[in-house]
Amino acid sequence: QEEVAYIFDKYHLISAPIVDAAGRLVGQITVDDIVGVIQEESGEDILALAGVSDAGRDATIYEIVKSRLPWLILNLATETLAVSVIGAFQEEITKLVTLAIIMPIVASLGGNAGTQTLAVAVRSLAARELNAANALRIVRREMTVGVLNGGALAIVMAAALYVFFHDPKLSLTVALALVVNLFVASVAGILAPLTLEKLGRDPAVSSSVFVTFVTDFMGFLSFLGLASLILL
Amino acid sequence: QEEVAYIFDKYHLISAPIVDAAGRLVGQITVDDIVGVIQEESGEDILALAGVSDAGRDATIYEIVKSRLPWLILNLATETLAVSVIGAFQEEITKLVTLAIIMPIVASLGGNAGTQTLAVAVRSLAARELNAANALRIVRREMTVGVLNGGALAIVMAAALYVFFHDPKLSLTVALALVVNLFVASVAGILAPLTLEKLGRDPAVSSSVFVTFVTDFMGFLSFLGLASLILL
Repeated sequence: QEEVAYIFDKYHLISAPIVDAAGRLVGQITVDDIVGVIQEESGEDILALAGVSDAGRDATIYEIVKSRLPWLILNLATETLAVSVIGAFQEEITKLVTLAIIMPIVASLGGNAGTQTLAVAVRSLAARELNAANALRIVRREMTVGVLNGGALAIVMAAALYVFFHDPKLSLTVALALVVNLFVASVAGILAPLTLEKLGRDPAVSSSVFVTFVTDFMGFLSFLGLASLILL
Repeated sequence: QEEVAYIFDKYHLISAPIVDAAGRLVGQITVDDIVGVIQEESGEDILALAGVSDAGRDATIYEIVKSRLPWLILNLATETLAVSVIGAFQEEITKLVTLAIIMPIVASLGGNAGTQTLAVAVRSLAARELNAANALRIVRREMTVGVLNGGALAIVMAAALYVFFHDPKLSLTVALALVVNLFVASVAGILAPLTLEKLGRDPAVSSSVFVTFVTDFMGFLSFLGLASLILL
């Protein structure tokens, strides 16, 4: 369906013949059918990225729960794995409880940056703008953007923390952790959908749970790890 | 543009006349134009939800950073506000550092549930399936789904924690916090886009930063607040 819609859009077709294996005409697809298909497909990408299958407008409560709960359970599992890294730094957190306040910021910003990269990648793959020929260039571009955005956020955050805590080592720790996590977020955000596409899977489905896991895990690990090296 | 595409889809039009104020024919729109418009618009919703404007396939690094950094700065601000609630519970965290490990799970699951509701709402609004006539019914349905999903996750999580920590009060605290946060997530996920739509704004833009703020804030507040009441 998506393939047919893409061809109609690319060649500005109004209708296309359907032929059987022997080349005999058996029907036709009109652009009219395609409009509905495109609306449908694009909606599916939005839902897939958010981890929900379409239960339909008149779905019962049971059908909706069934369409969303598996994703939440999967998220519970990956998030449990991600926070397990915090367990390794319990001693550090007890010494400096500020760490527990700052660590969700590093994780959350990574998650957001990863989601941005992922959304652009999924959209580019659907529009056939991202392919094997330019993948390497796009991956390098995303990495650079990740480091630059990480650097910008690092400056803002380090300065704000310095105003409050007057601790240059705390500012340095957060700044480094932000650059590391936004770089990792960009890499995950572009490589996850590219890998799924290469494996012949829908890149919109299951990319985001993976990206969120990576950015949470790395957010906690980079910040708490650097804190135990630099700060304590 | 979106409105025209919707009308073409609804009435299965192939072309439509364009008339001036006096009713004279000045041109026509064909379904051919519409296919491109729909591809474009639906892609915009995906990008808007992820907090990134379309910089185009040949965008420079500078243009990409410019299209993503403002959202990340906004996210830094709201996330700082959300984690400030953790600061009020520093004493509790020092006493029981396990709280710092579990609190991101409650926040993250709320964020995911809110994003699911939001994606479905944005899609339903775009497809004109969600409107003033059925909004109340849909809001109530989302609230019920939130409580049920929250309840299901609460049972899984409470049981898993009991196996590890043998502390029924800890299990109860997490369970209650999950139900509260997933209920709040559902309410935010449906009311944010409905409110923006009512104000004549694009519901896909800026809904998600609000929903994430609410679920993080409430995730930390409900879990740490309940912990200080029940657990300590």
